[in-house]
Amino acid sequence: MTPGGEFDWIERLLRPLTRGAPEALDLLDDAAVLPSRPGFDLAVTKDAMVAGVHFLPDDPPDLVARKLLRVNLSDLAAKGAEPYGAFLAIAWPAGTDWAFKEIFVRGLAQDGEAYRLPLLGGDTVSTPGPLTLSATLLGWVPAGEAVLRRGAQPGDVLAVSGPIGDGWLGLDDAKRGLEGRLADLYRLPEPRLDLLSSIRKAAAAADISDGLLADAGHIAKASGCAVRIELDRTPLSSEAAAWLAAQPDRTQALLQLATGGDDYQVAAAFRGAVPEGFTAIGAFEAGRGVHVVAGGAAVAVDRLGWSHA
Amino acid sequence: MTPGGEFDWIERLLRPLTRGAPEALDLLDDAAVLPSRPGFDLAVTKDAMVAGVHFLPDDPPDLVARKLLRVNLSDLAAKGAEPYGAFLAIAWPAGTDWAFKEIFVRGLAQDGEAYRLPLLGGDTVSTPGPLTLSATLLGWVPAGEAVLRRGAQPGDVLAVSGPIGDGWLGLDDAKRGLEGRLADLYRLPEPRLDLLSSIRKAAAAADISDGLLADAGHIAKASGCAVRIELDRTPLSSEAAAWLAAQPDRTQALLQLATGGDDYQVAAAFRGAVPEGFTAIGAFEAGRGVHVVAGGAAVAVDRLGWSHA
Repeated sequence: MTPGGEFDWIERLLRPLTRGAPEALDLLDDAAVLPSRPGFDLAVTKDAMVAGVHFLPDDPPDLVARKLLRVNLSDLAAKGAEPYGAFLAIAWPAGTDWAFKEIFVRGLAQDGEAYRLPLLGGDTVSTPGPLTLSATLLGWVPAGEAVLRRGAQPGDVLAVSGPIGDGWLGLDDAKRGLEGRLADLYRLPEPRLDLLSSIRKAAAAADISDGLLADAGHIAKASGCAVRIELDRTPLSSEAAAWLAAQPDRTQALLQLATGGDDYQVAAAFRGAVPEGFTAIGAFEAGRGVHVVAGGAAVAVDRLGWSHA
Repeated sequence: MTPGGEFDWIERLLRPLTRGAPEALDLLDDAAVLPSRPGFDLAVTKDAMVAGVHFLPDDPPDLVARKLLRVNLSDLAAKGAEPYGAFLAIAWPAGTDWAFKEIFVRGLAQDGEAYRLPLLGGDTVSTPGPLTLSATLLGWVPAGEAVLRRGAQPGDVLAVSGPIGDGWLGLDDAKRGLEGRLADLYRLPEPRLDLLSSIRKAAAAADISDGLLADAGHIAKASGCAVRIELDRTPLSSEAAAWLAAQPDRTQALLQLATGGDDYQVAAAFRGAVPEGFTAIGAFEAGRGVHVVAGGAAVAVDRLGWSHA
């Protein structure tokens, strides 16, 4: 540890991010110490992001930092868990300057405030490769009430929490240098923590990061059943609806929206009434696999979604 | 998520690493769900490692995997915490083959067994850069008994759990292609979980990863006091003693051993008797900073240890 190096970075930039949480031990320690919370389970999620793979290398550093938190917050939301704290591992490319780090930290601070999410610990290293980030997020959920991917049964309704395809359209816009609401949303997804009480009513759930078809398929697979998805019922934003209307093949275009990924909505299985905030788009069935219907006919699907791996 | 891709990797290679822990949800989910354990606190540590920075690019993948777990286990040991579970983020360089991954996983399995440490979750991504790893390890410690870096007071004894300098000598051997006990120990440090009951008696502790001087300094700084280290009292292995005897300047050589890092012993502050397994090498004092003594004289120190950052 070089004097003037890691300690300055920790004291000046990172410590304010702890928001005074005693668990963080002022980031003076190699570990955080968290009290147990009787009556609650701890949901733990860990996602990694690499420049050039999960975000564009010239994306603004504050937005990258916020996206890192938000993709993990989305995983907590899908579990029905209330955010508790974050641990970050950051591998800076050689020569990353202080100004870049300051902007990155500004993003962490902004969403730390928005989601009341303290930084509890982590590690900072250097790398000869691209900026590489990993966040471990912890959230509390009432004991036994975590919503898992397993838990769907034949007969359950498949429902989603909002528009599908905006993430893919936004990525496309961002890649072509087009600014607007969808490019913003791609860079800064909105985890559905506003729907926690509805999500906790679900029999199973997953956030939509790989694509609607893939993530609904994950629920089906984990639950040992099949899922039928009616593409004509998927909610679309006005931008996605306009894009769809301009495409020559409506079914293929709907498939594209449903496999593009990065939506960060929640797909869930409900037994009985679909709660506020969700739209029914299909059902879980006996069997295996993902069955897609559009325009009243079955659609052959050759890939379910996007893999970052 | 490509069929035949991430799921195969998870099902065939990673799932056995959960050791049947129900918290892992068979790695079918985006999060793990952990029950609270009333009467215990959860220690959480997160360390990252990058090929070419924290390990040699041609180090055997199974040893790299085991070192990743062990450096984090060492952080838990220094807190007095009993290992509970691990989360891993792995960024594979493009083109990493299945055989490499299998060997890496074999290392995880071997130390998962040795330390009864289940894999509870994580993320696997690809990178255009070097192999980049991050582990988040969780451990239980009786409520309120975690040993922190803060907690030392003037008058406390500074003690260490074993030989100092072997990590640096082992790195030097490994870099020069010399095989032997120290090169093995550099690649595969031994976290001092065998000393948990002694460590829990400490007023403050840290594992020695950056170097004895740096890590004793971390304790002093976090505790708001100074520390005096008597280099002539540091325990040495027979290999380190032989190396020392061959050096022209004994004090400079002792300093080298005390600043090299990667020892993964524990430095601790004890009030009263030093428990079994520890050797007293100095004391905490009023003031600030790290004061080094060798051959009865104060030694000027220009750097305290090694920074990976």
